[in-house]
Amino acid sequence: MGLLTPTNEELGRPDAAWRRRLHTVIFESETPAGRRFDKWIVAAILVSVAIVVVDSVPTFHQRHGKVLNAAEWFFTIVFTLEYLARLASVRYQLRYMFSFFGIVDLLSVLPTYLAIFFPETHALIDVRILRLLRIFRIFKLADYVAEYQMLGEALAASRRKILVFLSAVFMVVLIMGTLLYVVEGPANGFVDIPTSVYWAITTVTTVGFGDITPKTDVGRFIASVSMLIGWGTLAVPTGIFTAEMTARRHLRPPLLQLPCPSCGATGHGAEAKYCQMCGSALAAPAGENAQAAGPPVR
Amino acid sequence: MGLLTPTNEELGRPDAAWRRRLHTVIFESETPAGRRFDKWIVAAILVSVAIVVVDSVPTFHQRHGKVLNAAEWFFTIVFTLEYLARLASVRYQLRYMFSFFGIVDLLSVLPTYLAIFFPETHALIDVRILRLLRIFRIFKLADYVAEYQMLGEALAASRRKILVFLSAVFMVVLIMGTLLYVVEGPANGFVDIPTSVYWAITTVTTVGFGDITPKTDVGRFIASVSMLIGWGTLAVPTGIFTAEMTARRHLRPPLLQLPCPSCGATGHGAEAKYCQMCGSALAAPAGENAQAAGPPVR
Amino acid sequence: MGLLTPTNEELGRPDAAWRRRLHTVIFESETPAGRRFDKWIVAAILVSVAIVVVDSVPTFHQRHGKVLNAAEWFFTIVFTLEYLARLASVRYQLRYMFSFFGIVDLLSVLPTYLAIFFPETHALIDVRILRLLRIFRIFKLADYVAEYQMLGEALAASRRKILVFLSAVFMVVLIMGTLLYVVEGPANGFVDIPTSVYWAITTVTTVGFGDITPKTDVGRFIASVSMLIGWGTLAVPTGIFTAEMTARRHLRPPLLQLPCPSCGATGHGAEAKYCQMCGSALAAPAGENAQAAGPPVR
Amino acid sequence: MGLLTPTNEELGRPDAAWRRRLHTVIFESETPAGRRFDKWIVAAILVSVAIVVVDSVPTFHQRHGKVLNAAEWFFTIVFTLEYLARLASVRYQLRYMFSFFGIVDLLSVLPTYLAIFFPETHALIDVRILRLLRIFRIFKLADYVAEYQMLGEALAASRRKILVFLSAVFMVVLIMGTLLYVVEGPANGFVDIPTSVYWAITTVTTVGFGDITPKTDVGRFIASVSMLIGWGTLAVPTGIFTAEMTARRHLRPPLLQLPCPSCGATGHGAEAKYCQMCGSALAAPAGENAQAAGPPVR
Repeated sequence: MGLLTPTNEELGRPDAAWRRRLHTVIFESETPAGRRFDKWIVAAILVSVAIVVVDSVPTFHQRHGKVLNAAEWFFTIVFTLEYLARLASVRYQLRYMFSFFGIVDLLSVLPTYLAIFFPETHALIDVRILRLLRIFRIFKLADYVAEYQMLGEALAASRRKILVFLSAVFMVVLIMGTLLYVVEGPANGFVDIPTSVYWAITTVTTVGFGDITPKTDVGRFIASVSMLIGWGTLAVPTGIFTAEMTARRHLRPPLLQLPCPSCGATGHGAEAKYCQMCGSALAAPAGENAQAAGPPVR
Repeated sequence: MGLLTPTNEELGRPDAAWRRRLHTVIFESETPAGRRFDKWIVAAILVSVAIVVVDSVPTFHQRHGKVLNAAEWFFTIVFTLEYLARLASVRYQLRYMFSFFGIVDLLSVLPTYLAIFFPETHALIDVRILRLLRIFRIFKLADYVAEYQMLGEALAASRRKILVFLSAVFMVVLIMGTLLYVVEGPANGFVDIPTSVYWAITTVTTVGFGDITPKTDVGRFIASVSMLIGWGTLAVPTGIFTAEMTARRHLRPPLLQLPCPSCGATGHGAEAKYCQMCGSALAAPAGENAQAAGPPVR
Repeated sequence: MGLLTPTNEELGRPDAAWRRRLHTVIFESETPAGRRFDKWIVAAILVSVAIVVVDSVPTFHQRHGKVLNAAEWFFTIVFTLEYLARLASVRYQLRYMFSFFGIVDLLSVLPTYLAIFFPETHALIDVRILRLLRIFRIFKLADYVAEYQMLGEALAASRRKILVFLSAVFMVVLIMGTLLYVVEGPANGFVDIPTSVYWAITTVTTVGFGDITPKTDVGRFIASVSMLIGWGTLAVPTGIFTAEMTARRHLRPPLLQLPCPSCGATGHGAEAKYCQMCGSALAAPAGENAQAAGPPVR
Repeated sequence: MGLLTPTNEELGRPDAAWRRRLHTVIFESETPAGRRFDKWIVAAILVSVAIVVVDSVPTFHQRHGKVLNAAEWFFTIVFTLEYLARLASVRYQLRYMFSFFGIVDLLSVLPTYLAIFFPETHALIDVRILRLLRIFRIFKLADYVAEYQMLGEALAASRRKILVFLSAVFMVVLIMGTLLYVVEGPANGFVDIPTSVYWAITTVTTVGFGDITPKTDVGRFIASVSMLIGWGTLAVPTGIFTAEMTARRHLRPPLLQLPCPSCGATGHGAEAKYCQMCGSALAAPAGENAQAAGPPVR
């Protein structure tokens, strides 16, 4: 996993008994205590994020400012205690502090304290929204691992194809943006190449805000070509990823079945008892095999 | 099915003969009378919805207000009678009244009556559009069951993957929205986090209304990243669902092969010579089997 | 094919020798003369459509009005002659006149004549753009038949699933549109239900013109849900059609191969000479089979 | 490859020893020197493009104009030297000069010189962005060839289907655009047919800038139909390309099976017992074969 996201083993279990118990609760999500702890933390994160969101609405801030402020402090203290508990429950504190989640954990409490001591840093207070990222830690542990992993693997396997695709999109966007900068010019809103590239991205991705639009005939022609490219091109990453997902589904089931012990034939149904090819009995009752293997992965 | 959408068996057939006849017409859509009843109800729903739509156009309302009003009352009375007939034709009235379709049936007539007695509730009159939902009841009974079911099954089987995907989208949208709230601020239209999240959703889904757009360079850069993420990410649910649909089509064909002549087992491979279940030779040569089975189902 | 698009056989060959020759040139696109005729007609259609397009631009119309007008008359006369020639070269003139392409052929010349005699019908002159539809006739005859047909078949096979899907989209759009009409009201641009449904369609299809946008918080929330539905739902028709296309590719190759004459086994490679299962020679040399069958359809 | 993109063989190796060495460095990217040269050129291209982009921003141009100008001249001279070196290192200079990349190489230095001698051509200076295209040359040589090629092959194989699809889209867009020109007219922004077609393209591709929008009810109805067509139609190119990609992945696995021990033929089915080509028994039992072949390639 590397040092950015160290495993529980890399973080290490501490020696002291109370710190060991803390480790069990915080890091071992298979245990009942760990599971309960995870659920409470997710709830706390969601509520505290909801407070940040609601607090940003001026009318709410004026009316319920005090309650929101108190709740904010409550959660800041809870997360601070959690941070200290995490520090106490690992053997190698520095590894935790400089890991991805260690930094996120710190960033999700720091702004509230800073806003007290340095009122001018108040603009940073919304950094607290990064608390959301902490939920991803729970994802690693939840029932959704298999789904999460399959999506991840399919994306990882398509990585190189997606990179080739993205670099081609990047070039199209840069060239189209520059073309429109030359053709339309600052008078029509294409004030510089970065802005034109921003426009090209809104066009190729079919977002089309319409805050900047081509006015000349040539510009509109180039824009039309960009749109058709962007619209049709979407088929490419979809095709890459879908072929990957389809193949993954086809790959797995056969691996769940043993070949025929007398003729070696494969491809039997999930509950086959006799070989399709030579009629001899299959070594292990395939039915149990299939059972043991569970339902074919999705 | 649960109590929200009870089956006809759970609603029960009443004892009285005339109520039984009513039950046949209203609930048993396989009978000729039931089929005719379904068609008339769908027609009535569509016409009455068309009236609600047309009545909302000011010029039409002024010119044909009286005719529209009369037609509206006609359909309200028809649907009221239907509601009472449904009540009369089931054994357990309460189960029907508190089922999903029971509530929809009531909501599709109530507003017209309420608008008479409490003129101030006139704003609710458009709730009548929910009549449309009643058409879904017919769907359950129609020729399209197989298609409807296959789409439903494929979606249900992808449920967990789609949930993982949606939660990831939710986080991206929340973080991107907050980032733009911090970067652009109320001066550029990002007045609070909910509004910014609304903007992030229009961007990630490539809708791009353009009512709120980033003005600063940093904001436009983050927006560009959001667009590319949203555009490319669409490949993910498509891939999930397509792989599911493709697999479902591949699953079926084997079921078309002739069953084993001695034990009746099915599901043999295209080249099977011996029954998987009992080991006896399959009657017809597999080649002819495949022929006899015709083209695989679509 | 029915009477809307009658086949050449249904239109019939005339008796007179010169009309038979005309029939060969106009309707038999496999002959060299027919092929040449088709090419010239396509060229004439494209040029005449280009003239209609260019003539609509005010500056062009003012500067080159006379040339454009002359060219327009030239093509109108050419297409009139072609129409008369088509009439002369079929046995059953009425069948042709009232067929889909017969009407399109007439509509593509009539407006020019009408504009002379009834100057007030000049607005109809752009109906000439329907000339474009005539190109579809050529499509039927060209090298692209196989591709055209496969796309058509896949769409036709998915017809019922697509219908179920479209009716669901239609309901979502109607309900979402009405909801926003109720929530936002005429003050925010949602002046009546048809307009709101138009807005819901721009939103669900992710077009997002931005000419009408929700202003209230509730409206924005419903809009966000609509966007996510529309964005994610696109996976459904894509999945349906892709699964159909994938299955079609898998279906065909085996059909090109005869089963083994001695054991009936199927699934041999495109150039197999001996049965994979029993080792006996395959009846007809499979290589020639495969050749005769042409490359596997794509 | 043709003369537009001649291969290294077609460009020819020169006779003189120093020119041969140059050829090795510039054209033979497998050698260590060639690999290093490629990397430096890519770096130079990216930095020089970044300078063009940054220089277009007015504030940057004013503040750092001199530095940017100096850097621009540095890269222009580097690329000029590279151009001369390329000329020197091939046998047939004209073939290189008039090849696609020869022209791009010239276009990427010429504007800077022209802007000196003919200040009025300064608008052309941004043509330098075409330098980006030179990176595609490197693509041919890099580690991504396999991915690049597979995407290219799948697109090429779907070529005819995509052409049929694009021509249908082209007609839809032309007819929809003309319809809205007739229905909405210049008063609502649909000033001529080209503009209306531009609008139709923004609508069908779901970009939806919103700079031109229908105002009449009929116009909005036609627009709604266009949107639904465009939204649903996207399934078609996606389906075409995905089916192609999926089939390509399925095609490969058989190639992994062991060839026939007596005639060397390949491509046997997973359960083959006898060689398809010569009828002799396959050496290893098919079951082990499949095992030995490992999981099918991705």
